[in-house]
Amino acid sequence: MSDAKTMPRGQIGRSLPRVEARAKVTGRAEYIHNLRLPGMLWAKIARSTVPHARIRGIDARDARAMPGVHSVITGEDIRAVIPEPYFGPAFHDQPILALEKVRFAGEPVAVVLAEDPQIAEAAAHEISVDYEELPAVYDEVEAMTSTAYVHDELKPAGMFADLKHLAGRRETNVALDYHLRLGDVEAAFAAADRIFEHIFRTPQQMHTPLEPHVAVGDATATGVTVHSSTQTPSTVRVEIARLLGLPENRVRVRTAFLGGGFGAKVYVKLEALAVALSLIARRPVKVALTMEEQFFTISKHGSTFRIKSAVDKDGRLTARACEVVYNGGAYADIGPRVAQKSGFSAAGPYDIPNVAIDSYETYTNRPTAGALRGFGMPQLVWAYESHTDLIARALGLDPVEFRRRNLLRDGLPQATGTVLRDVAAGTVLDRVVQRLGWGQPFDRGSGTRKRGRGIAIGMKASISPTTSVATIALAADGSATLYSSTVDMGQGSTTALAQIAAEALGIAAEAVRVVAPDTDVTPYDMGTLGSRSTFHMGHAVRRAAEEAKAKLAAMAAEAGVPAGTNLPIAEIFRRKYGMQAGTIVGSGSFVPDYAPPDHATGLTPNATPYWMTGATGAEVEVDTETGQVRVLRLVNVADAGTPINPRIVETQLTGAAVMQLGFTLSEEMVFTDGQLRNPSFADYKIPGIRDMPETMTGESVAARQESGPYGAKGVGETGTFGVSPAIANAIHNAVGVRITELPITAEAVYRAMRAAAGDPLPEE
Amino acid sequence: MSDAKTMPRGQIGRSLPRVEARAKVTGRAEYIHNLRLPGMLWAKIARSTVPHARIRGIDARDARAMPGVHSVITGEDIRAVIPEPYFGPAFHDQPILALEKVRFAGEPVAVVLAEDPQIAEAAAHEISVDYEELPAVYDEVEAMTSTAYVHDELKPAGMFADLKHLAGRRETNVALDYHLRLGDVEAAFAAADRIFEHIFRTPQQMHTPLEPHVAVGDATATGVTVHSSTQTPSTVRVEIARLLGLPENRVRVRTAFLGGGFGAKVYVKLEALAVALSLIARRPVKVALTMEEQFFTISKHGSTFRIKSAVDKDGRLTARACEVVYNGGAYADIGPRVAQKSGFSAAGPYDIPNVAIDSYETYTNRPTAGALRGFGMPQLVWAYESHTDLIARALGLDPVEFRRRNLLRDGLPQATGTVLRDVAAGTVLDRVVQRLGWGQPFDRGSGTRKRGRGIAIGMKASISPTTSVATIALAADGSATLYSSTVDMGQGSTTALAQIAAEALGIAAEAVRVVAPDTDVTPYDMGTLGSRSTFHMGHAVRRAAEEAKAKLAAMAAEAGVPAGTNLPIAEIFRRKYGMQAGTIVGSGSFVPDYAPPDHATGLTPNATPYWMTGATGAEVEVDTETGQVRVLRLVNVADAGTPINPRIVETQLTGAAVMQLGFTLSEEMVFTDGQLRNPSFADYKIPGIRDMPETMTGESVAARQESGPYGAKGVGETGTFGVSPAIANAIHNAVGVRITELPITAEAVYRAMRAAAGDPLPEE
Repeated sequence: MSDAKTMPRGQIGRSLPRVEARAKVTGRAEYIHNLRLPGMLWAKIARSTVPHARIRGIDARDARAMPGVHSVITGEDIRAVIPEPYFGPAFHDQPILALEKVRFAGEPVAVVLAEDPQIAEAAAHEISVDYEELPAVYDEVEAMTSTAYVHDELKPAGMFADLKHLAGRRETNVALDYHLRLGDVEAAFAAADRIFEHIFRTPQQMHTPLEPHVAVGDATATGVTVHSSTQTPSTVRVEIARLLGLPENRVRVRTAFLGGGFGAKVYVKLEALAVALSLIARRPVKVALTMEEQFFTISKHGSTFRIKSAVDKDGRLTARACEVVYNGGAYADIGPRVAQKSGFSAAGPYDIPNVAIDSYETYTNRPTAGALRGFGMPQLVWAYESHTDLIARALGLDPVEFRRRNLLRDGLPQATGTVLRDVAAGTVLDRVVQRLGWGQPFDRGSGTRKRGRGIAIGMKASISPTTSVATIALAADGSATLYSSTVDMGQGSTTALAQIAAEALGIAAEAVRVVAPDTDVTPYDMGTLGSRSTFHMGHAVRRAAEEAKAKLAAMAAEAGVPAGTNLPIAEIFRRKYGMQAGTIVGSGSFVPDYAPPDHATGLTPNATPYWMTGATGAEVEVDTETGQVRVLRLVNVADAGTPINPRIVETQLTGAAVMQLGFTLSEEMVFTDGQLRNPSFADYKIPGIRDMPETMTGESVAARQESGPYGAKGVGETGTFGVSPAIANAIHNAVGVRITELPITAEAVYRAMRAAAGDPLPEE
Repeated sequence: MSDAKTMPRGQIGRSLPRVEARAKVTGRAEYIHNLRLPGMLWAKIARSTVPHARIRGIDARDARAMPGVHSVITGEDIRAVIPEPYFGPAFHDQPILALEKVRFAGEPVAVVLAEDPQIAEAAAHEISVDYEELPAVYDEVEAMTSTAYVHDELKPAGMFADLKHLAGRRETNVALDYHLRLGDVEAAFAAADRIFEHIFRTPQQMHTPLEPHVAVGDATATGVTVHSSTQTPSTVRVEIARLLGLPENRVRVRTAFLGGGFGAKVYVKLEALAVALSLIARRPVKVALTMEEQFFTISKHGSTFRIKSAVDKDGRLTARACEVVYNGGAYADIGPRVAQKSGFSAAGPYDIPNVAIDSYETYTNRPTAGALRGFGMPQLVWAYESHTDLIARALGLDPVEFRRRNLLRDGLPQATGTVLRDVAAGTVLDRVVQRLGWGQPFDRGSGTRKRGRGIAIGMKASISPTTSVATIALAADGSATLYSSTVDMGQGSTTALAQIAAEALGIAAEAVRVVAPDTDVTPYDMGTLGSRSTFHMGHAVRRAAEEAKAKLAAMAAEAGVPAGTNLPIAEIFRRKYGMQAGTIVGSGSFVPDYAPPDHATGLTPNATPYWMTGATGAEVEVDTETGQVRVLRLVNVADAGTPINPRIVETQLTGAAVMQLGFTLSEEMVFTDGQLRNPSFADYKIPGIRDMPETMTGESVAARQESGPYGAKGVGETGTFGVSPAIANAIHNAVGVRITELPITAEAVYRAMRAAAGDPLPEE
């Protein structure tokens, strides 16, 4: 441990090892999964066996009779303690336990409470439900026109007011439609030299945090506490308070370290259930999912993206039309926001004067989809950067040269009309080109092993409107404690925020202790999501530190210290209080400037506080006998502004790229008639050590986000953007086939090669 | 639960039921005694069997060999992790475990760590220690001149700088001597009409909180946590940080509700031991005392008070000389402060122009004495109000009339020279006279049962220098959370501070949630002691609320709300953030004005931020055949300024009076050759339900402390002041004998009656 008195030269740009590293490697870091409270009951969820049905009855007599079973709870029991038991961040459409209907196979229908988890699980199997099955819809494109309606009526609600116009819509599976119209797209297509149109698809996929969801509800006479593996303690608190009709200060949401989040743990997931069960049982109740159950809890949207571009004779993009349909599954979760917020970036990081975007969130009878590292962008970049490559090839242009001709740069308006500032897209592209050695000769392979290279670049907006608040307490010896509801789920936020606080206070980052999020303790933050913490919370932390510094200066003046005297913090306290006593508390909040999009056109002068740009270069080797793809090199370059902690930025880029590598090559939730066929890691393949690229680099370019804290911006998602299209483009470069649907399995590549050779394999 | 939006008329003077009442009666209130951490070891202390000795050797082989024993730890083992393992708030004289010497029978010598507490206890009995016994001293008056020195050298240190002049003194058992000289005492005695001199004694007594001391140490790679039943989490944090050489923010001291404190749990008690054991064992360690062990942990000073007064022919006190000797036991703890701070009030609430006070803290070979509800004042009031009664009787004056002639009033200087402001002593005396029916005929008893009445009044200063800090977080729905390190140990501080915060915020007290003290969470407060919380922390809370209100107004202005618009808090947040989001954090601190006493004279113009006055009226019945005293009525009246919560003030007064009733009639730690003979509640008699007075009232007079928060001041100790002398005075009134030593047992009264009748019983 370091001396709080050390006055370091600078805390920004230090590759400080993660401050929680020792606690983690010594097994002392806290995870909610380890929590046991006295008198705690264990919950196990009985799940729907059918994808869409009316519930005729639930027979839990056998389960209730089992020794050690405390009770069996159904949706109607929940209604006795929470009269309107529907939740959701954007739509209040999800029941805490199914009421009247089930809408996907795997939906929670009842819960067994028991003295230990084994008994609970055994009893859950004894519950039988009488279903009257209903017509179902699974595909997002079919959902647009199907009359198998998942919900009777749209119920937009929650944190944001701008979705109210959707309320009450009936006989539709379109939960949200977003439209952007810039320029005159039809005229531009009419005048185009060339027009290209493609369709790209992605499947439903999984977050797979290694720590599954867990929540422990603890309702007492004076309020409720929920210990949860959540990325959004503050917003969960607001939602639980709403459900229970309690003031916020009677609801406590505590979290700890998370074993990964990736968007799976944003907004209410298990928390409302855990709290409701505790209210009913009048004991603490733990709901801890298995890995398998995560598949039925939250997922990444499958998508279908029809993209059409007009190009003039100089290889300049003149128009683009995008139609994106997201498969949201049975409940809205944050899906409508994904469709809306990714929507305005669907045309990519290109300077295109005429743009039409139509983005749709659909309900289907599948497990719910929500936010997953990129909030829709990886699906979009997959499409528009595969499309870009195909256009360049068709035009006979070098794909990089084609991109350079069309790339957005500072001072140009993005499709929304928002003028770019501090977007280092050109630098990012240049750097990935350089690191990959694009344009230089390389070993193209031989025999049955063909090698190729591909590049892709994506750009994402950050989140707004949104609020972050931080508090800093300065102890009498000059050591500091930072209170922030930012959740450290492995991304290193604790370390980065300590560095920002320390820089502003003029002390060493090691002298700043960061306490774990706890709504009783740490002030409001919208959530740890959307790569927003470094920027948004970073600002709040800096401001909190600045208020603390100002109070310290005032205290020094009160204590008669002449202005300009440079006393150690501890000495100022001693002068004021006569001993080692006292605390100075500073707080700061941050709300970025933002202008909501015009409802008709989707245009706005200020869509986002900053843009994140990420590019990937890939070199692959394809086995032409099997279609097997090996990624030899993966180069990930990002604009992260001025990194607070360069090493963490690099590992974030690489970690994101590895995650996207799984989504690119292997991951897919496979359904038959709405039944998930592979809900286990034996059958759902995430990348293992043998799937890693032979070489992989993560790099942030020299850049500065002037509006960011110390020039920084977020980077948690950036590494995902270009991975899938870069690999698809490299495969095309290697073996001349184009894959338009993820994942790019060996079978898909092999089938494509056979088809290209005029010898297609029969469909399964 | 109440609606945060309710705008009540006023929160001050509301007899709101305690906000924690439901949690307590439903068994959900947290106490550290219930805490178990994963992997936790249990500690049991092996204690010295001799009162003063050099340790030749410790043989723990048998203990170590017992199944389930983890280890046996001695003072030398502690030294391996804490090189200077001496602690104490005023003197760093107390080893965490005995080193080289033991200084009282019962001192911790070694600790067994085991997997369960029964094994630890059994093994502790198997430790044998080889002692070389040393001469010992037990009596405080003997200690003044004895050559049996308890310590080689005085080691004043710690929070306060003003004791440094004592450092290095050798060959003395006087830990601290305090002297006050006002006017010309010798001349006044020479000129006196009458002179009276008496000696009064009190025995060593016990705090007996129903929850014994407990601490759980948890040392990790990044710092230490100690969960403790402490009244002073902030100062324990500073002391543990000093012992370990850690910055404050790496030391976390958590507490919860306390099952009583009464001064037993101020400053480090078990915390250093628990932390050291955890550092050694690298596991959490719980040290939980039995009731019996509390007798060896901390106690109330026995005392000898020689008091001498000069009176003129008008019954006016013209001079008073006080010599107080406190029996501090083996370690200083806060004892030197008791001698010093009580010292300047030793002459009582009387306007006496010439005063000499000599107050001494002595070391003896007894269990350590510290602070106990009144910080020395009950011992002093016992003496000076018995003395006052004896003077009035001797002068043939009505004791109340004699007091009225001499009582201090606003505008007059107290002995220190500090001029009284907002001291309602006259009103308190008048009211107790009225409530008791003093001067009116009453049933004097008959036969062997004689009745009598007595009155007494005392006055105490509050604490200074001292610091309190509070923080308030305002949630987006207008509910508030108060962060204060004030410990609720049954006195109702949580409720009173919530009322102050609510009044300042303009919301209902029910909308304020108060979080438990935790130095990671709640800002610095010197401690919950000396009746200081309502006044000192009350100010800090009010200021924190005012800062929060100012920030709310600034936010409203930012959000474009016209000045003067009276919007609900929740609506201001919504205007600013566009949704239910955000937190406003306000903080406030309080340091009372204070002028330290002149070193030579003990005089100061500002000894205390306020004065507390309490008077008691008692009616007793004495059985002349047995000496048994029954208290028929006990009337306790106080100046509490303007009570924040009148009902809690009343119960505080009554609770304090009952506690002092035990000290008056039955409680005494009985020693033979330094060995405590009655370390159990079977043999050490605290008041039971049958010892309660037939009627008992607690009342605060209409008063206002202008310098207090909303006119309030502290009241936790006030009810103790007058109880003992009022009862002694009543006994004198009933049967004509004077008891000068506590406790006033039946035997003492019977012996006194027999002696008065010229037929003394032989001494035992």
